[in-house]
Amino acid sequence: MNIVIKLSSTKIKMSNQSDQGASADFIERRRAALERFINRTANHPILRVDPDFRDFLESELELPKATNTSALSGAGVIRLFNKVGETVNKITYKMDESDSWFEEKVQQVENLDAQLKNMLTRVEALVYQRRELSQCTASFGKSVAMLSNCDEHNSLSRALSQLAEVEEKVEHVYAEQCIADFGILCELLKDYVALVGAIKDVFHERVKVYQNWQHAQVVLNKKREAKAKFEIMGRTDKINQANDEVVEWESKVERGQEEFENISRMIKKELERFELVRIQEFKVTLINYIESLMQNQQQLIQIWESFLPEAKAIA
Amino acid sequence: MNIVIKLSSTKIKMSNQSDQGASADFIERRRAALERFINRTANHPILRVDPDFRDFLESELELPKATNTSALSGAGVIRLFNKVGETVNKITYKMDESDSWFEEKVQQVENLDAQLKNMLTRVEALVYQRRELSQCTASFGKSVAMLSNCDEHNSLSRALSQLAEVEEKVEHVYAEQCIADFGILCELLKDYVALVGAIKDVFHERVKVYQNWQHAQVVLNKKREAKAKFEIMGRTDKINQANDEVVEWESKVERGQEEFENISRMIKKELERFELVRIQEFKVTLINYIESLMQNQQQLIQIWESFLPEAKAIA
Repeated sequence: MNIVIKLSSTKIKMSNQSDQGASADFIERRRAALERFINRTANHPILRVDPDFRDFLESELELPKATNTSALSGAGVIRLFNKVGETVNKITYKMDESDSWFEEKVQQVENLDAQLKNMLTRVEALVYQRRELSQCTASFGKSVAMLSNCDEHNSLSRALSQLAEVEEKVEHVYAEQCIADFGILCELLKDYVALVGAIKDVFHERVKVYQNWQHAQVVLNKKREAKAKFEIMGRTDKINQANDEVVEWESKVERGQEEFENISRMIKKELERFELVRIQEFKVTLINYIESLMQNQQQLIQIWESFLPEAKAIA
Repeated sequence: MNIVIKLSSTKIKMSNQSDQGASADFIERRRAALERFINRTANHPILRVDPDFRDFLESELELPKATNTSALSGAGVIRLFNKVGETVNKITYKMDESDSWFEEKVQQVENLDAQLKNMLTRVEALVYQRRELSQCTASFGKSVAMLSNCDEHNSLSRALSQLAEVEEKVEHVYAEQCIADFGILCELLKDYVALVGAIKDVFHERVKVYQNWQHAQVVLNKKREAKAKFEIMGRTDKINQANDEVVEWESKVERGQEEFENISRMIKKELERFELVRIQEFKVTLINYIESLMQNQQQLIQIWESFLPEAKAIA
C-alpha cells in the first residue's frame, strides 16, 4: 500500500513577513521537505502506526511551537530502535565485527555517504551556474533590446527587438531548469545525505548496544569471581548477596545479547527496505528530472523556431 | 557580385610551439577574423581593385613579417580617404555642422558604438557562463560515475553509469554552444565594434579636412588683408609676392572645400553601403546562431531521450 499525503502550503506559518520572496522560497522548500518526510514515515510499516505520528496528522489543535527542528533528522529513524543511554559512551570496547554483512554494509554506507555528499556539492554548483547563465541571458536580452532601440532599420530593429523578447523567454526556461535541478536533484540528494546520516547513527547505536552487552559480561565475570572467592573463603554472610548480583548480571548479559541480536536483525530488515525505497525514489527522480530537461529543451527549440522567420525577414 | 575567399589554417604560422591548445584556439580565431576581413575587403568595389590587396592575395612569395598588426584596424577603411596630416590637429576650429545628415549620423554611430560594446560585454559574460556550466556538468557527471561505482544495485548502478556518460555528452554540447556563442556572436560584435570605430575615425578625418579648409580660409583672409595693406601703402615691391600668396591660398581654400565635399560625399556613400552590408551580416549571423542553438537543443533532447529507457529500466 502506498500512502500519499499532500501538504498545502497554507498550513505552514511564518511570523516574519519581511523579505517575502526569499521567505516564500524557503517556506516552499520546507513544505516540500516536510511532505517528503511525512510520506516516508507514512509508508513505513511500523512508523505508520506510531501514535505520535497519527496525532500529528489528525490533530485539529494548534501544534506546539517547534523549538529544535531539523528537516530530516535521524531521530525519526532512531525511534525504531531502543535508544541506549550514553552511560557506556566513554568506555570503548573495540567492536570486533563478527558479522560480515555488517562489515561490508558499514563500508558501503560510508562510501555512499561520501559520494552523495560529493554529488550534492556538484549539483549545487550546477544550480548556481544555471542561475548565473539565466541572469546573463537576461542582461544579454536587455542589451539586444537597447541595440534594437538605436537601430534605424525597421526590419533589423524589429528582429532585434524580437530577439530580446526571445532571450527573456529563454531566461525563464533556464530559471525553470535551475528550479528543477534544485527542487528535484538537490533535494533528493539532501534527503539521502540525511537518511544515510541516520543509518550511520543507527550503526553507531548498534555499537553502543554491543558495548552495553560486553560491559555487562565483564561485570558478570567480576561478580562470578567475587562469588567464587567468597565460597573459597567460606564467607557465607557475603555469598547470598554475591549470588543475587551474579543472577542480576546474568540477566543483564542475556538482555544485552538479546538487544544486540534484535538491533542487528532490525537494521538488516530496515536497510533492505531502505534500499528498495531508495532505488525506486532514484528511479522516479531521474525520470522526473530527465523529463523536465527534455521538456525545457523542447520549449527552447520552439522559442528559437518561432524567432527564425523574424530573422529571415530582415531585408 | 559576391566574392568568398577561404583561408586555410595552414597558411598562418606561429613560431611559438608551446601552449599548443591555447595557440591553436588563438590561431583559429585570428584565421577566422582575417578571413572575414579579407572577404569584406574583396567585396568592396574600390578596395577590391587595390593593388596592395591584389598583391597580398596573389603573391607566391613569403610575406614580410608584420610588426604592428591589429585584426581589424580602421586603417583599411581610412585608406579610402585621403588621410590628412596631423598638422592642424591642435588648432581647433569648432565644427558647426551644417549638414543635418552628418549631425544625425554621428549621434547614431555613437549610440551604435555604445550598444555594440555593451552587447559584446554581455555576450562575453554569456560565453564565460556557458563554459562554467559545461565544466560543472562535467564534474557532476564524474560524481555520478563515482556514485554508480559504489552502488551495488545492478540496474541503478547501470543507469547511473549511463547518466554519467550522458552528462559527458551534454557537457560537449554545452561546450560546442559556448564555441558557437563565441565564434558567431562575439566575433561579429567584435568586428562591428572595430568597424564602428573605423567609422568614428573617418568622421574625425572629415572634421580634420574641415579644419584644414577653415585654416586655409583664415590664412587666405590674412593674406588678402596684407595684400590690401600693401596696395594702400603703395608697396609695389611687396604686392607681387602678396598676390602670389593670395592665389596660392585661394587654391588651397578651393582644394580644402573640394576635399571636404569629397570626403562628405564619400562617407555618405560608404555608410549607405556599410548599413546594407551590416543588415545582411546581422541577418546571416542571427540565422546561423539560432540554427546552431536549435541544433544543440535537438542534440540535447536526443541525448536525454536515449537515456530515458535506462532510467525506466531501474528495477
